[in-house]
Amino acid sequence: MNIELICSGSELLTGKLNTHASFIGSKLNDIGLNLTLVTTVADRKKEFSQVLKDAIKRSSVIIVTGGLGPTFDDITVETVSEILNIKTYKDEAVQKAICQYFEKKGIKNPTQNNERQSYIIEGAKVLDNRFGTAPGQMLHFSYLQDENKKVRKTIFLLPGPPGELHPMFEEYVLPFMRSYQVNIKKTLIIHICGMAESLVDEKIKPTIDYLSNDDNIEFAILAHNYLIDVKVSVSGENELIIDDILKNINQEFINVLGDNIYGYGDDTLESVIQKMLIETKRTISVAESCTGGLLASKLTNIAGSSLCFKQSVVTYSNEAKIQILNVKQETLNQFGAVSRETANEMLNGILNLSKAEYAVSITGIAGPDGGTNEKPVGLVYIGTSFNGNNEVTKCMFLGTRQDIRDRATNCALDLIRRLILNTRNKRIAK
Amino acid sequence: MNIELICSGSELLTGKLNTHASFIGSKLNDIGLNLTLVTTVADRKKEFSQVLKDAIKRSSVIIVTGGLGPTFDDITVETVSEILNIKTYKDEAVQKAICQYFEKKGIKNPTQNNERQSYIIEGAKVLDNRFGTAPGQMLHFSYLQDENKKVRKTIFLLPGPPGELHPMFEEYVLPFMRSYQVNIKKTLIIHICGMAESLVDEKIKPTIDYLSNDDNIEFAILAHNYLIDVKVSVSGENELIIDDILKNINQEFINVLGDNIYGYGDDTLESVIQKMLIETKRTISVAESCTGGLLASKLTNIAGSSLCFKQSVVTYSNEAKIQILNVKQETLNQFGAVSRETANEMLNGILNLSKAEYAVSITGIAGPDGGTNEKPVGLVYIGTSFNGNNEVTKCMFLGTRQDIRDRATNCALDLIRRLILNTRNKRIAK
Repeated sequence: MNIELICSGSELLTGKLNTHASFIGSKLNDIGLNLTLVTTVADRKKEFSQVLKDAIKRSSVIIVTGGLGPTFDDITVETVSEILNIKTYKDEAVQKAICQYFEKKGIKNPTQNNERQSYIIEGAKVLDNRFGTAPGQMLHFSYLQDENKKVRKTIFLLPGPPGELHPMFEEYVLPFMRSYQVNIKKTLIIHICGMAESLVDEKIKPTIDYLSNDDNIEFAILAHNYLIDVKVSVSGENELIIDDILKNINQEFINVLGDNIYGYGDDTLESVIQKMLIETKRTISVAESCTGGLLASKLTNIAGSSLCFKQSVVTYSNEAKIQILNVKQETLNQFGAVSRETANEMLNGILNLSKAEYAVSITGIAGPDGGTNEKPVGLVYIGTSFNGNNEVTKCMFLGTRQDIRDRATNCALDLIRRLILNTRNKRIAK
Repeated sequence: MNIELICSGSELLTGKLNTHASFIGSKLNDIGLNLTLVTTVADRKKEFSQVLKDAIKRSSVIIVTGGLGPTFDDITVETVSEILNIKTYKDEAVQKAICQYFEKKGIKNPTQNNERQSYIIEGAKVLDNRFGTAPGQMLHFSYLQDENKKVRKTIFLLPGPPGELHPMFEEYVLPFMRSYQVNIKKTLIIHICGMAESLVDEKIKPTIDYLSNDDNIEFAILAHNYLIDVKVSVSGENELIIDDILKNINQEFINVLGDNIYGYGDDTLESVIQKMLIETKRTISVAESCTGGLLASKLTNIAGSSLCFKQSVVTYSNEAKIQILNVKQETLNQFGAVSRETANEMLNGILNLSKAEYAVSITGIAGPDGGTNEKPVGLVYIGTSFNGNNEVTKCMFLGTRQDIRDRATNCALDLIRRLILNTRNKRIAK
């Protein structure tokens, strides 16, 4: 079954971010249904009509967002009415509800414009809007699909503002869509770090190829700044069988990817780190240079981080490195601020200050300036330490200043994650 | 002329936010062109082919994003090749560039998969990807529009990751699109902070109303986490007249908004702060608690920040506040970590450590837990200091943990911006 979304609104073509596809797509996906197509079109009758006609031809369910407002460019209701050749009428109850909404907000006389919003397509169910004036509409209609085959289709008209759309979608559209839910669908998102996307693909390809004839199993792979997500969706009638398939696929992936898998679903590198630290009652401290606080802000992003995050310093200048972290002037002179030696002394400095069990240090060149042949933009040294054992990793990151900072932060999170994973059962020597 | 965008990627139909339409729509709008239609489609050949065929029929310029990666579901190049009936060839130079990209990253042997990315459609111009492996492609082709009328059309194939797409769009697509520009259009983006959106709206409404009959002038207002942008676009044939209109509108806005305007265009709060600090050869240091490094990471986000950013500490625990910043144990006991007094001592501590001319301190409750009736979630004290004069501002922010951290960071940036603005001509007492 095809489900299609049409987002009407010229502003969506000139820079305004469209969040409807993401919201609706995700909600439908959760119940095992998928959007087939999303079209964004200007609120001009000619273009909107054509898109609507095509959608009605192709799909069984059409969801239209936007164009229900009170102004001249709100053309959704009249266009749908014309294309389906079904009249509209002025709904007194709706008109009354609009007036009440305005009264609540202390506005006595709604403008004439708002009267436009009380026109309903004959046969449509009115969908109450608790957060705005424009009601939604749900219409079942019959459509001459082929020469002489009539089929029943459904169109939803929903308001554009997310604050009105979201509750209306949950209240009216989702329950209806559930009636189309034939199968159960479950999705497993596997998070991977520390491997190139192409290598992950190569490793999991045998599993994917082996299952490629099964239409009930879908794979997707997505990479972003050193993090890779693999999404596995399994549909079927029997939940136990679905769980079993997912479990097996996951086991296959664990076999080939090992501890490059850092988590599942809502897990993030930082949440996984925080969980392990709290479980082992250990703490972490951070000394940053080129990432300028990004690593600390990630590690404190989740509620409860105060239990394991001890402190962080951003020592951007040499002066600060010397003064706060006790990095030696001669180390900076001999090896430079971006060096294995400095990263190591930064580790010692932050450990000395904070007495945490784990520490991370980052020093590098985020660019765009400051690079040399010997030390190019993107060169970053990441130090990690457990129980006084320091290790420094040399990394090269490509991209913009922002990319380099993001990637260095993710890489540092992954390095400390691996270190905690491998040392969490180790005793601490006092 | 129709310009159409096709975003390919199943993940965009199942919940992933699509930012391409917003980025490309806004960039085109800036030069007076508009996207006619945006279609989001799964990366399955059948659906993608149909959407592509329809788009080629309707539009003169087709921009396709996504599906250029190395994995099985990356089908853009082969599908475009099939539909246009133009062969692909393996481009040795592209293959070499991909290998070099991997070498830079320290990977010796790219997988076979990456070889897929070196296939180019015959006649297409290769668009270099400086931030990833997949090159873009620009192809001019002739199309039999009506019975016997051939027209020239253009298709762009661009990579999906925003970090790769954005620079490629600016470098290759925009210059080409400028050749279609009939009118001149100039846009002024005015950044405002420290006022509610409704108040900004009230202040600028007279100007907007006065100009509302002029179709060549457009206004848009956008608010996000305490920052407000007003976008003014003016179209016309004469650049001097356009500049004059923009100048006048800007002056009107300055009259009513004053130094709530913090910048224009690419300016950010942090870039404005950095500029003023570098001009006056003064420095800043930061002590953060609930924002956990976010403020520092913003202040070091721009190249050159090492000239004015001295250092920062994230003192999440009381212990760290005492040890690093010399906050008194009795202050914490008597007033608590989230208090005017602690914010003040944090200021003194970071100034003492860093000897910067300016300092900011933040201590608050980001939630979701940790709030009380007396000190609810969202309560944040922000300290600012110049030349030893400390001031602490009490703030209440609403929203999620992330919202509160973002808003506190923006508010702190605005407070220090105003302080620098008002003191930049003042001498420093030694």
